[in-house]
Amino acid sequence: FPSRLPQVGTTIFSTMSALATEHGAVNLGQGFPDFDCDPALVNAVTRAMQSGHNQYPPMPGVPALRQAVAAKIEALHARQYCANSEITITAGATQAILTAILACVQPGDEVIVLEPCYDSYVPNIELAGGVVVRVPLTPGSFRPDFGKIAAALTPRTRLIIVNTPHNPSATVWTEADMRTLEELLAPTNVLLISDEVYEHMVFDGAIHQSAARFPGLAERAFIVSSFGKTFHVTGWKVGTVAAPVPLTAEFRKVHQFNVFTVNTPVQYGLAGYLRDPAPYLQLPAFYQAKRDLFRQGLEGSRLRLLPSTGSYFQCVDISAVSNLSESDFCQWLTREIGVAAIPLSAFYGDSFDQRVVRFCFAKKDETLRTALQRLRRL
Amino acid sequence: FPSRLPQVGTTIFSTMSALATEHGAVNLGQGFPDFDCDPALVNAVTRAMQSGHNQYPPMPGVPALRQAVAAKIEALHARQYCANSEITITAGATQAILTAILACVQPGDEVIVLEPCYDSYVPNIELAGGVVVRVPLTPGSFRPDFGKIAAALTPRTRLIIVNTPHNPSATVWTEADMRTLEELLAPTNVLLISDEVYEHMVFDGAIHQSAARFPGLAERAFIVSSFGKTFHVTGWKVGTVAAPVPLTAEFRKVHQFNVFTVNTPVQYGLAGYLRDPAPYLQLPAFYQAKRDLFRQGLEGSRLRLLPSTGSYFQCVDISAVSNLSESDFCQWLTREIGVAAIPLSAFYGDSFDQRVVRFCFAKKDETLRTALQRLRRL
Ligand SMILES: CSCCC(=O)C(=O)O
Ligand SMILES: CSCCC(=O)C(=O)O
Repeated sequence: FPSRLPQVGTTIFSTMSALATEHGAVNLGQGFPDFDCDPALVNAVTRAMQSGHNQYPPMPGVPALRQAVAAKIEALHARQYCANSEITITAGATQAILTAILACVQPGDEVIVLEPCYDSYVPNIELAGGVVVRVPLTPGSFRPDFGKIAAALTPRTRLIIVNTPHNPSATVWTEADMRTLEELLAPTNVLLISDEVYEHMVFDGAIHQSAARFPGLAERAFIVSSFGKTFHVTGWKVGTVAAPVPLTAEFRKVHQFNVFTVNTPVQYGLAGYLRDPAPYLQLPAFYQAKRDLFRQGLEGSRLRLLPSTGSYFQCVDISAVSNLSESDFCQWLTREIGVAAIPLSAFYGDSFDQRVVRFCFAKKDETLRTALQRLRRL
Repeated sequence: FPSRLPQVGTTIFSTMSALATEHGAVNLGQGFPDFDCDPALVNAVTRAMQSGHNQYPPMPGVPALRQAVAAKIEALHARQYCANSEITITAGATQAILTAILACVQPGDEVIVLEPCYDSYVPNIELAGGVVVRVPLTPGSFRPDFGKIAAALTPRTRLIIVNTPHNPSATVWTEADMRTLEELLAPTNVLLISDEVYEHMVFDGAIHQSAARFPGLAERAFIVSSFGKTFHVTGWKVGTVAAPVPLTAEFRKVHQFNVFTVNTPVQYGLAGYLRDPAPYLQLPAFYQAKRDLFRQGLEGSRLRLLPSTGSYFQCVDISAVSNLSESDFCQWLTREIGVAAIPLSAFYGDSFDQRVVRFCFAKKDETLRTALQRLRRL
């Protein structure tokens, strides 16, 4: 039978993680922490299981967790979402994004993605029968090019997907960027998926500019976040979508016939754990220290550091070090130097190669030090 | 924006559970146990979390769990699946079924469903752009009508969805049924989703006729199962798909961009727990006793018992008790008698009403006794 996704192979993240394991390389490729979560969170989930929270929760999620999510958004971004009708708990951010796309994209609808972008967006749009419209971020700076975005809008544009802090470039959108997008979309009915999974990883005192802060964006947005990223439990697969009532209503129609609902004890555990804001309020400083450790370790090397202002990624320009393509360089680096990285070309439909690769610094300091020792041999 | 699923409302299961809670009714509607799982399983998941299994597992699932699943299928049905390339762990059976449909159904492809059927199938097919072809099971007996199925097959048929033990009718397919389907499909390229989530709930000495037992079915089948049903943890949201290499390859392309992967500690916990076959081998006797308790309690009442040979459901004909529609009867029964049930009309596209409602007997004996006391007032 013909493939629905003929272009798709194994994700670059799985491929590089497998290669890293095979060669005993330090895995700075796939984005996940190599340190553990707060034991209090494990205990909270254990208590939920032990007290019998093991059957179906309500389809949109455990009410206490949805309330905690709404309270958090209100505290951080001064916008009220109704826990009952505007917050949904998802099996991770990837499921949230596919579900949102399936809920609003009809065959033939155009969806704008800003490249480089996360590798699930394009196949997600294709599964919905949508037409992918690729708009590049500005080469070099990875800044949004609003002229190009404006030019890409047509009467058939249904949706635009924005991601800040940005994977893979580690840039963040400013307040002015968000306002410009808001103005650009104001005369349209275009919907927005705002992928904010790295919301708590912004550095140097910057504030995460959630779409929730901009009424003209929030009214049309599925705002996606991830407990896996925030609480160092990428394997728990639990995220959230905040969206106005009409969007949430359509989202839940698809959600209930995709996963139906999400692991009950994890939801109860998170609901209690989320009451204390300290764990996520400490994240910027926690990850900024790791970023700085990693950057300092590469200073004076021939890997040219690009800015990293958000996310847990650091991009480097490899052109002074190697003539290999990004992809071949990452393979070589894994095999020969013992450090895995991700080529930025994996985030472009045409495998555009700008001689930049991405490292993940969500690792123990000792892991980063081992990687740095190896990278200094370059 | 226009709805992708204009027909879809809240599922009947959520609606009836909410109504049951509101009226303090015994909830025999939505299918889930009101007793807890084996504490050993909770302990196994806890140990996995405590030993740091909290980050992304491999995309198709934790290898030890996939191996345990393959070993179980081989032990029960004498068919070998490769754990590496033919078994995938899913976020429950519903996610497995949507993912399989998105992986193989192109817009315009025809998909046969046998009505009554689980309420996710039809919206799942619609999301993939498929054409739903509804074939009724034989009224009264709920037996497959192979003449009708044969007549529904066309050159555009891509897929047929079969479910045994059957929800909602509590019937099971015999070996002869499976052979007839095998012969019917032999000259075609039609794929099969075999929804076997109630595989361990077959009664009176019958053997579950998995598609895995029939080479001509297995070679074209996504065989779907559910740990939630088997181990009394419907809220954990973890299931499996077994399918030959080419089907699994396409399945995983969609899976990796839907949920990507499934809760890690739950997978580790299940991998260990699955080594002992006793928990699932005891299930038929365990549930048969509950079925018998429930049936005996209704003997002599004017609710006419239909056969229940598999699943954890019991259907009853209400025509001697009430003139209400199935749906109104279930509402009335919940509000006035204090027992929630599900109308079979919810499993038909045209809300066909045959005066039959479904009770779930996956409940503590004392819960069943309370429900029976109330039902005897009818
Ligand atoms: C789902 S595996 C990929 C993890 C991730 O977000 C990344 O590395 O970009
Ligand atoms: C996903 S809620 C429905 C549970 C179930 O399988 C049923 O009641 O039929």
